[in-house]
Amino acid sequence: MDWLSEPIRALDLAAEAAARARQAQLTKPPGALGELEALAIRLAAMQGVERPRLDTLWVTVFAADHGVAAEGVSAFPQAVTGEMVKNFARGGAAISVAARAIGAPMEVVNLGTVADIGAVPGVLHLPLGLGTANMTQEAAMSEAQCAQALAAGRQSAERARRTGAQLFIGGEMGIANTTAATALACALLNETPRLLAGPGTGLDAAGVAHKAAVIARALDRHRSALGKPYEALRCLGGFEIAALVGAYLACAKNGVAVLVDGFISTVAALAAERLCPGTANWFLYAHTSAEPGHVRILAALNAKPLLHLGMRLGEGSGAAVAVPLLRMACTLHNGMATFAEAGVSERDD
Amino acid sequence: MDWLSEPIRALDLAAEAAARARQAQLTKPPGALGELEALAIRLAAMQGVERPRLDTLWVTVFAADHGVAAEGVSAFPQAVTGEMVKNFARGGAAISVAARAIGAPMEVVNLGTVADIGAVPGVLHLPLGLGTANMTQEAAMSEAQCAQALAAGRQSAERARRTGAQLFIGGEMGIANTTAATALACALLNETPRLLAGPGTGLDAAGVAHKAAVIARALDRHRSALGKPYEALRCLGGFEIAALVGAYLACAKNGVAVLVDGFISTVAALAAERLCPGTANWFLYAHTSAEPGHVRILAALNAKPLLHLGMRLGEGSGAAVAVPLLRMACTLHNGMATFAEAGVSERDD
Repeated sequence: MDWLSEPIRALDLAAEAAARARQAQLTKPPGALGELEALAIRLAAMQGVERPRLDTLWVTVFAADHGVAAEGVSAFPQAVTGEMVKNFARGGAAISVAARAIGAPMEVVNLGTVADIGAVPGVLHLPLGLGTANMTQEAAMSEAQCAQALAAGRQSAERARRTGAQLFIGGEMGIANTTAATALACALLNETPRLLAGPGTGLDAAGVAHKAAVIARALDRHRSALGKPYEALRCLGGFEIAALVGAYLACAKNGVAVLVDGFISTVAALAAERLCPGTANWFLYAHTSAEPGHVRILAALNAKPLLHLGMRLGEGSGAAVAVPLLRMACTLHNGMATFAEAGVSERDD
Repeated sequence: MDWLSEPIRALDLAAEAAARARQAQLTKPPGALGELEALAIRLAAMQGVERPRLDTLWVTVFAADHGVAAEGVSAFPQAVTGEMVKNFARGGAAISVAARAIGAPMEVVNLGTVADIGAVPGVLHLPLGLGTANMTQEAAMSEAQCAQALAAGRQSAERARRTGAQLFIGGEMGIANTTAATALACALLNETPRLLAGPGTGLDAAGVAHKAAVIARALDRHRSALGKPYEALRCLGGFEIAALVGAYLACAKNGVAVLVDGFISTVAALAAERLCPGTANWFLYAHTSAEPGHVRILAALNAKPLLHLGMRLGEGSGAAVAVPLLRMACTLHNGMATFAEAGVSERDD
């Protein structure tokens, strides 16, 4: 766990200033490309160049089961986690299709499902157990499991870095993982479950109320430990959530931009920022999820996501959908003519 | 002008139902892809197939000058219209760069600039005058000019159709054209200029107030004519705005989907719908502009744009930026596995 104390890479402020100066000279009214301008400038600061590019991407989907599923908090049976791992690897899931569409290599890491799905071609099996423990009764993860999950995420980020990835997308799959993520968010933000719990994959109002009550029991059980972000993650999180945290931390330490996906990923992002302040300098935010608590998690990170499409799938799918916008921001920034190059008059000031 | 009375193509409700049924079987919780699901279903209804595609696109940018620029309503000098026509053709403008990025052929149609820019390679010159007349003093267009501008738009839509385009994007350029578009929107919605006028390319508060006053004078002068959408367009619009209207009408009559860009394009879309009700069945909306009146124009069309990035450039640029999202909606719809294909359990209901 020593690697957690390594410093976060600093952004390149000279490259940021150069990119900002370039934007001011492009043939358009100042600011007319809106958030696409800020995005290009931000990527310039991350990449240390005036003209950033997003040629090389990386997607890792982390999957694991959750003991708290026994409390009846999901609209889907627990078998779906393992079934979806196979679907990811065979190319039929949303993230599989979207990753192909954006030309991103995708790895699937199985950190432990209840169902024995055997060896699946294209899936990295790193089982830490048959899912987490039921957080209403005990800590979701042991010390060793939590450290191993963080390390698994770090290893994915290292593989991404070695391929020269300019953007890391982390996805997650695990029946009941909005329950775990909501509990973790409640601990990190000191909010009540009623405020943050939502329908996940499709609970009705009674289901959401039950989910909030389950989360409240978990928070009560672990109350004394929740002041420390690491303990909150260990007691309430999940293998795939901790792996996302580890991957995000390693990206920020290595200087690789992260495109954060939806509700669960954003909770992992918040946990990473609480563990190592400054990590969030390396985050871009893809979309606002339909999960109602997402806006509060985003606000805690001062995040302004690019898309607001009412998506609520996870897997990294919202991030993959946003990639073409990031690329367009770079392409416009790099490819447009300046006023001088085009012989276009500037404004009457 | 007989073509205006030709019927609007009907959407294919059987294809829409088939696409909706397919969405319900894809391996994700129902509705989890949010607006991307509705988009794929809508495109299916437009294309008359269960699995729509967006392989072939078309962009036309219409440019023209505006007599009302003499009233000092823009932050930029009038010479910029002609200069930007050259920049479009040479590939340095935002829409040029974005059109290349999405693989869309782009034509530039010059309908009349004040500056004599001569023959520019790659620009279709169809001059209807040295810009429109000053709408505060007389009708912006004669009967013949307005009919010719509509016909020029129709011809662009016909060229798009002949290439097999599955999506038409219209862009516009013309110094002072937010003033013309705002006046037209005031007439169509019976709203006051103070409510709809905005900064355009970058006016300050005093500039916006002056612009609203200029529009109020134009509305007063033409008050008796403004009950008829065609007369409102002729008296207050512009060559490029009327061309957009003509292009949108022809697309809807031919059954070609239109991706509407920002403020000015949406006013043209509203005018087209008022001229031939049902035209809007063929509209998709790319983005909400930073121009404050845009949300009211969008509301009048029951439009829910895809993006909210604070863009305010026009040229069709916001539409081009949104195309990858439309394509992603199709790719996910067409490429994802069904529950049966993937052997994934459905929800516990």
